[in-house]
Amino acid sequence: MEKGEMVYEGKAKKVFRTGDPNLFIVSYKDDATAFNGAKKGTIRGKGQINNRVTNHLMRLLESKGIPTHFVRELSDTDTLVKKVSIVPLEVIVRNIAAGSLSKRLGLGEGEKLAFPVLEYCYKNDELGDPLVNEYHIRALGLAGREDLELIADYSFKINSILGEYLESVHISLIDFKLEFGKLPSGDLVLADEISPDTCRFWDTRTGEKLDKDRFRRDMGGVEDAYGEVQRRLLGE
Amino acid sequence: MEKGEMVYEGKAKKVFRTGDPNLFIVSYKDDATAFNGAKKGTIRGKGQINNRVTNHLMRLLESKGIPTHFVRELSDTDTLVKKVSIVPLEVIVRNIAAGSLSKRLGLGEGEKLAFPVLEYCYKNDELGDPLVNEYHIRALGLAGREDLELIADYSFKINSILGEYLESVHISLIDFKLEFGKLPSGDLVLADEISPDTCRFWDTRTGEKLDKDRFRRDMGGVEDAYGEVQRRLLGE
Repeated sequence: MEKGEMVYEGKAKKVFRTGDPNLFIVSYKDDATAFNGAKKGTIRGKGQINNRVTNHLMRLLESKGIPTHFVRELSDTDTLVKKVSIVPLEVIVRNIAAGSLSKRLGLGEGEKLAFPVLEYCYKNDELGDPLVNEYHIRALGLAGREDLELIADYSFKINSILGEYLESVHISLIDFKLEFGKLPSGDLVLADEISPDTCRFWDTRTGEKLDKDRFRRDMGGVEDAYGEVQRRLLGE
Repeated sequence: MEKGEMVYEGKAKKVFRTGDPNLFIVSYKDDATAFNGAKKGTIRGKGQINNRVTNHLMRLLESKGIPTHFVRELSDTDTLVKKVSIVPLEVIVRNIAAGSLSKRLGLGEGEKLAFPVLEYCYKNDELGDPLVNEYHIRALGLAGREDLELIADYSFKINSILGEYLESVHISLIDFKLEFGKLPSGDLVLADEISPDTCRFWDTRTGEKLDKDRFRRDMGGVEDAYGEVQRRLLGE
């Protein structure tokens, strides 16, 4: 499958047309940004790691009944995916307080939440991806009631599947961000990526951070942490 | 009923014990604050207007089946209410985009929302009353699932009752903030106030603001606007 015209370039990925109007190629970059683009850098090898980790987890989720946009891994950094129209929401699932939740609600980083928390942010760089609730989403026409119920249902299932799997390789799933898309048929599928860029992964035994917070917070050892996630998940 | 010990002093009201452990006296002040206390001032006559307007609307809501903390008006500024334990949420209902919603979501002030929007903010001055959703509320233990469903149900009913009534006196109900409390029996009731301090009221015909935004935004005519609301609601 050959790359055609680039249709989108985001902070961490490019998307290209293919000869098939229903398929796109996603190409992962080493570029890293944080704080809505205010901080920029490069994480060597990240494109390859995030591509392979995402595909590994998408395959796991598909095997457990979650529909995804994943079709086939084309190379270390490129993946063939179904063309979707992205629902303009960042869907965040949180098991342990960290990051913006800790700051906003005054919870200690690492504090276990009594229940998993689902959050929606309106994907809009100009507005800084503001937190929205179901009523905002419906009033703004970002998603309908049925799609939103399915998104919540899938998100909690994904949390259970990933949490259990990651625990088996001694990684605690603190929180993560998902994006969903709609196929031309109208079916909702999981899209985007699941990687150390979009999840908080903490080593279950040492508490060491194995994710983008090392970049955000200038903690060093960024490449090593991403590599460690790849090793634990893909055994290489 | 005599005022006993003051148990609470807020930005706009004081609360006193009475001889009956299940009853409190609320005393409305002319003090006005905005932006989480950063702006301070006085609105002459506000205490009396907010007390009388609140009681008028609480009586209306009670007559339509909404339980409230209201017992009896004692004077122009003092009201006897049932003692409640306040649910630490600001419950906001919005019909038309204005204020923080406009800013956060990039909606023009005055834009009609496709559906009424319900928002919850965690009442916490230190954290700046952050926006929370149902999952945050449950994880933080701020309210249980059943109470939250009742709060949403009451809030939308209150919106319908007040909206229809205010329309009859040519006031558009743009948005408003409610607080709920629990009686010792565990029953949930509407508490706090419903006034130009806690609602956005726009003249239906001219669009003129008849609420605290005149104070927040230094628009002048604050006392006249509050007085106009009292005249339209109480005919005096």
